Amino acid sequence: MTSRTEATFFPPIPEAQRWLRGVAFPADRPLINLSQAAPADPPPPAMRAAMAAALEEPSSHLYAPVLGMPALRAALAEEWSRHYGGRVTAEQVGITAGCNQAFAATIAALCGEGDEVILPVPWYFNHKMWLDMAGVSAVPLPCGSDLIPDPEAARALITPRTRAIALVTPNNPCGVEYPGEVLAGFHALCAAAGIRLIVDETYRDFDSRPGAPHGLLTRDGWDEVLVQLYSFSKAYRLTGHRVGAVIGAPDLLHQIEKFQDTVAICAPSFGQKAALWGLEHLSQWKAEQRDEILDRRAAIEEHFGLLAAKGWKLLGCGAYFAYIEHPFAEGSAQLAPRLVREAGVLILPATMFTPKGDPSGDRQFRVAFANTDRAGIRAFAQRLAQVDGPLAAPGGAA
Amino acid sequence: MTSRTEATFFPPIPEAQRWLRGVAFPADRPLINLSQAAPADPPPPAMRAAMAAALEEPSSHLYAPVLGMPALRAALAEEWSRHYGGRVTAEQVGITAGCNQAFAATIAALCGEGDEVILPVPWYFNHKMWLDMAGVSAVPLPCGSDLIPDPEAARALITPRTRAIALVTPNNPCGVEYPGEVLAGFHALCAAAGIRLIVDETYRDFDSRPGAPHGLLTRDGWDEVLVQLYSFSKAYRLTGHRVGAVIGAPDLLHQIEKFQDTVAICAPSFGQKAALWGLEHLSQWKAEQRDEILDRRAAIEEHFGLLAAKGWKLLGCGAYFAYIEHPFAEGSAQLAPRLVREAGVLILPATMFTPKGDPSGDRQFRVAFANTDRAGIRAFAQRLAQVDGPLAAPGGAA
Repeated sequence: MTSRTEATFFPPIPEAQRWLRGVAFPADRPLINLSQAAPADPPPPAMRAAMAAALEEPSSHLYAPVLGMPALRAALAEEWSRHYGGRVTAEQVGITAGCNQAFAATIAALCGEGDEVILPVPWYFNHKMWLDMAGVSAVPLPCGSDLIPDPEAARALITPRTRAIALVTPNNPCGVEYPGEVLAGFHALCAAAGIRLIVDETYRDFDSRPGAPHGLLTRDGWDEVLVQLYSFSKAYRLTGHRVGAVIGAPDLLHQIEKFQDTVAICAPSFGQKAALWGLEHLSQWKAEQRDEILDRRAAIEEHFGLLAAKGWKLLGCGAYFAYIEHPFAEGSAQLAPRLVREAGVLILPATMFTPKGDPSGDRQFRVAFANTDRAGIRAFAQRLAQVDGPLAAPGGAA
Repeated sequence: MTSRTEATFFPPIPEAQRWLRGVAFPADRPLINLSQAAPADPPPPAMRAAMAAALEEPSSHLYAPVLGMPALRAALAEEWSRHYGGRVTAEQVGITAGCNQAFAATIAALCGEGDEVILPVPWYFNHKMWLDMAGVSAVPLPCGSDLIPDPEAARALITPRTRAIALVTPNNPCGVEYPGEVLAGFHALCAAAGIRLIVDETYRDFDSRPGAPHGLLTRDGWDEVLVQLYSFSKAYRLTGHRVGAVIGAPDLLHQIEKFQDTVAICAPSFGQKAALWGLEHLSQWKAEQRDEILDRRAAIEEHFGLLAAKGWKLLGCGAYFAYIEHPFAEGSAQLAPRLVREAGVLILPATMFTPKGDPSGDRQFRVAFANTDRAGIRAFAQRLAQVDGPLAAPGGAA
């Protein structure tokens, strides 16, 4: 028999990297790589200086407690309480080696073989991959044309095997920000069904809305239903240091501790110290980073006119991502390597974010625009607008 | 239904930490904590200086490739080829966030629901925990009084569901070094059965034997059978930086890449750079560390006379661990918290390393002596020798 891992699809980012092999990019027209949601710059100098100082503390090199350094758990709880206007304690915070690990650990703690988790489609590929590897069925929840999932549609998918609904907001891959009332609707649904609502807020620091994006944490007993996931990678430019978090019930964290101990022992201590320093010192800097990302989002919208004239559509745009539809007859998985060769542009086809056979997968792309600037975004739109090919029949599969 | 994680036992190290709560240790008689196999000191100053310099390289803060930085994979392959006298290429090396993750990823790649993996008993608890969480049956292979597993005994345990035999040498928890011919016997058995031989060599840098501990890598096609696991944590004092490795077939690594991408994205880039620097610069320093650990092992043997006089037995001793048997009537899980209170000593009971109901679990302890010195080892033996209690009946469960 094959392992579940063998039956799982290959990770999209390394697969997409393989399309670059053998393709030459002239020096005056380098590859525009919008495939991955990762800052390209290092942390700011003051943070690097703090990290250098931390190298002289022995604890930076030793194991941390399995669920994270107490000071970091406490600081994130405080920041979380302030931002969401609720009450979060250090015992409700666990530190993981990145947000993917927070999701994997949460699913491992909640789900047994053959259980089900509802995911809006398009989904984040690593969520789907982990469910496949964990023997958990990913139940697709189709979204409407606004790419926002509907709690009422989700209600019809709940079975006795459903353990959770997992949302991502601001969304990866679609870029849309889920309205507070949509989250409230999902919370009420999950509470009534006795299942968990997992909300991955990796991109929360780049939400265009001021203040708290939802009021879920202001409810008494919020942790009976809600589990939030977070990443220090984006806002603090710590991708390579692997620090994330899960915010939820202490009982759940006690189960998660087993997974963390066995798969990671702990998140890297050095990264945890950097994350703590960031929480304590970088709120102003983080606000400026957010402004910069929001400006890039605006640049996508401004330059999209070039593409709209050629039949492309902008379906969603926010945080790190735009979700776009192409006008050509071929499928996005065939078109993606052609865009590498003909336009020097790498973006991921929606086949990587949708169930096999979903017609939207063939028509759409995710554009991870956060690691380029206005000039890069303009060049991206210009290059894409020059690509030709037989067009899809109007009113096709989209 | 409960998740597999809920059905899995709690991780021993945090559980043991809980025995310390509410116990006061006088300043002149601090706790002697021999529960965890981790160096207590930071990396050497030259390495810390190299790490500080690496903070100014942007790539230290960004994602690395899922299977690790190419330079680290190549350097470990070269070191491995030299040490084991075989041929290992960079494509046969994958970098993980610690050796536990290397094991988890390997099992995920190899095993499906209900498959079986044979583990010698006593086993390393995180191996057993991961198999439980992955839905894989851990099949216990009892060892003789020398704590060395026998390939002939393993042969009788192989079924059509067996996917691998996993060994740890030098052994955690027992400290014994498996002879090269024992490994050759297991290799032949696995080759004939068409299963993998997983050899966790986390403690290889502290093996008392000069040169290669086995000749498995000198065989053509070694990677069809053998998978080795390694950790940079111990020899290079990088525990908190989370860097380990899996050495095996490129096809297997391609499956492991899925797990790594989903659970970790990559091992921390900064830790990978430190590990690379260590490989390139610390071979002499590492040899001195080994001498120091071998001297601590000698100290255990020298001071054990105190304990032998009180009825304790030394069953195994090597690398970071001694495996010892107590003389008392009570079980080791009851005795362990009493040792904290009465002797100020924290060691892990063998119940944490044995199947439920195995009588040896009640009689034995693991002593992780690597993070103390000769004086600490003497104090440990003296304190333990002062503990009293009703003795076990002679010829009891051991």
